[in-house]
Amino acid sequence: MPVFPMARSVEVFAPATVANLGPGFDILGLALAEPYDVIYAERVDEPGIVIDQIIGDGGKLPRDPKKNTASIAAALVLQQLMIQSSGVVLSIQKGLPLESGLGSSAASAVGAAVAVNALFGNSLRRQDLLPACVEAEAAVSGRHADNVAPALLGGIVLITGFTPDAIYKLPTPANLALALVTPDVSVPTADARAVLPKAIPLGNMIGQMSSVGLLVSAIHTGNVPLMAQAMERDYVIEPARQHLMPGLKEVREAARKTGALGTVISGAGPTLCSICTTTNVARRVAEAMESVYAVMGISATTRVTVPSMDGATLRIIER
Amino acid sequence: MPVFPMARSVEVFAPATVANLGPGFDILGLALAEPYDVIYAERVDEPGIVIDQIIGDGGKLPRDPKKNTASIAAALVLQQLMIQSSGVVLSIQKGLPLESGLGSSAASAVGAAVAVNALFGNSLRRQDLLPACVEAEAAVSGRHADNVAPALLGGIVLITGFTPDAIYKLPTPANLALALVTPDVSVPTADARAVLPKAIPLGNMIGQMSSVGLLVSAIHTGNVPLMAQAMERDYVIEPARQHLMPGLKEVREAARKTGALGTVISGAGPTLCSICTTTNVARRVAEAMESVYAVMGISATTRVTVPSMDGATLRIIER
Repeated sequence: MPVFPMARSVEVFAPATVANLGPGFDILGLALAEPYDVIYAERVDEPGIVIDQIIGDGGKLPRDPKKNTASIAAALVLQQLMIQSSGVVLSIQKGLPLESGLGSSAASAVGAAVAVNALFGNSLRRQDLLPACVEAEAAVSGRHADNVAPALLGGIVLITGFTPDAIYKLPTPANLALALVTPDVSVPTADARAVLPKAIPLGNMIGQMSSVGLLVSAIHTGNVPLMAQAMERDYVIEPARQHLMPGLKEVREAARKTGALGTVISGAGPTLCSICTTTNVARRVAEAMESVYAVMGISATTRVTVPSMDGATLRIIER
Repeated sequence: MPVFPMARSVEVFAPATVANLGPGFDILGLALAEPYDVIYAERVDEPGIVIDQIIGDGGKLPRDPKKNTASIAAALVLQQLMIQSSGVVLSIQKGLPLESGLGSSAASAVGAAVAVNALFGNSLRRQDLLPACVEAEAAVSGRHADNVAPALLGGIVLITGFTPDAIYKLPTPANLALALVTPDVSVPTADARAVLPKAIPLGNMIGQMSSVGLLVSAIHTGNVPLMAQAMERDYVIEPARQHLMPGLKEVREAARKTGALGTVISGAGPTLCSICTTTNVARRVAEAMESVYAVMGISATTRVTVPSMDGATLRIIER
């Protein structure tokens, strides 16, 4: 990435992400074009990180810069750049719903990390921001990179570790559209992780490895139907979590009937993500999924989107 | 595959295979150009399968057609073809060492299955022979397809199940040469499977999945160095088995010093397989590996080979 002069203020659009993609627990994630958080950041003379305002979170996110993923990531990047004589003021506009399985905390962390890097000359590559973002995630929802890595790099990312050289961007298949439905039920990430088995029978590990192998192969060949098929072959994570996701079976069936190729839990849920080949089909699928929840008396928000090819995008406001 | 008239006698060259490729336990295998078994098969009026002779096995393999993988596979294919009024006489020339981790029983099963299919009009596709070959394998070394599938299809095969549509041929990277060393120590497959953990900690499963994902991605991009790197990232199988493989660490180091990109246990061992980019390098590596065993007072056989692109090959002897 080219180094450019320091900016005075920048804005970063940091995307939602679908982590796991079914069997790829903690190792695969996909960046989405929408929704996204907008992180506004301004370079100031006062050292340290300040959160000026957060909008769109219903007052739920911590304003204390030591507790918010955005400011934690920002502080770590400042540290990584060895900047001690200046600071950053952040404003966060949440486009992502909280605790919905769409990587809300990751998006804010990535947005802030990319912004701070940009304010001080953009000398770090995107992957160099990974450790700061993983640490920020760890402070609120466990040490995993399957949201922050795709939010940083875009497309589909394979995670083999938490160092910059341990994340791999896979080719993004063409003709990939996503229908998302977020039912109005609470599934805290910590709960969704607590129900996972601590040990996996060897046979299930073999099955899960074969699903991951098939999924990665389908991604490389751009075979979206095979990708969706592999995503639904989850021997470990979905079986342990499905009881936390009301209507999963019914939503999956309704989605399939209206043209979806497969449906999985997005991250820790409760958002469900259906794989489609066009946004037109995805719109029909999203409606069908919402109807299933309506019958169950659960209100739900639907979204239709496509992959974000580049991840977080930067706009310079003032040089 | 084209249907052609029945042959009176055929010969099949059935290749050795490297199963697992490191982390891909039971789900990945690679077919080798050498060594191979030669299965000669003749159509006869007498129903059933007869083994006429086996050479090259030092008298160790069962001559009873109910106990030999070649004849078991042959009988199952006859059954699959619903042939009751004719039979097959097999002669087996073992080119593969027994219990060496190179898929000896699988090669013979595949050779016989391909031969019987050819004798009766070749109406089945290669993948349709999978179930018969898996059953034959199961009779002697457990139900797994990571040797029979690549021996049938050639190249690198991903196994997601035991039905014909559950095996996927991945693209074979160019510039892939293998150095094999088989030390003169006995590691029965059953023993090598018995030492495996029955349950895998979640964190190790995640690591193993990331290695499989990386390996499949590297195979698709033809990145042999990355492929070798992924193959050595085994969190589950090698740690459990390494104590059965004398000199593994030393052989790996010697191989690396002479130009190998990575070294793994082939199947259940004791053969070790080093990944190289040319046969010239592989020859140097094989010598270095042999020297390590020589110092340890263990005699060893080395081989240098390349992938078999097509798997078992058929030659019609008499129409």
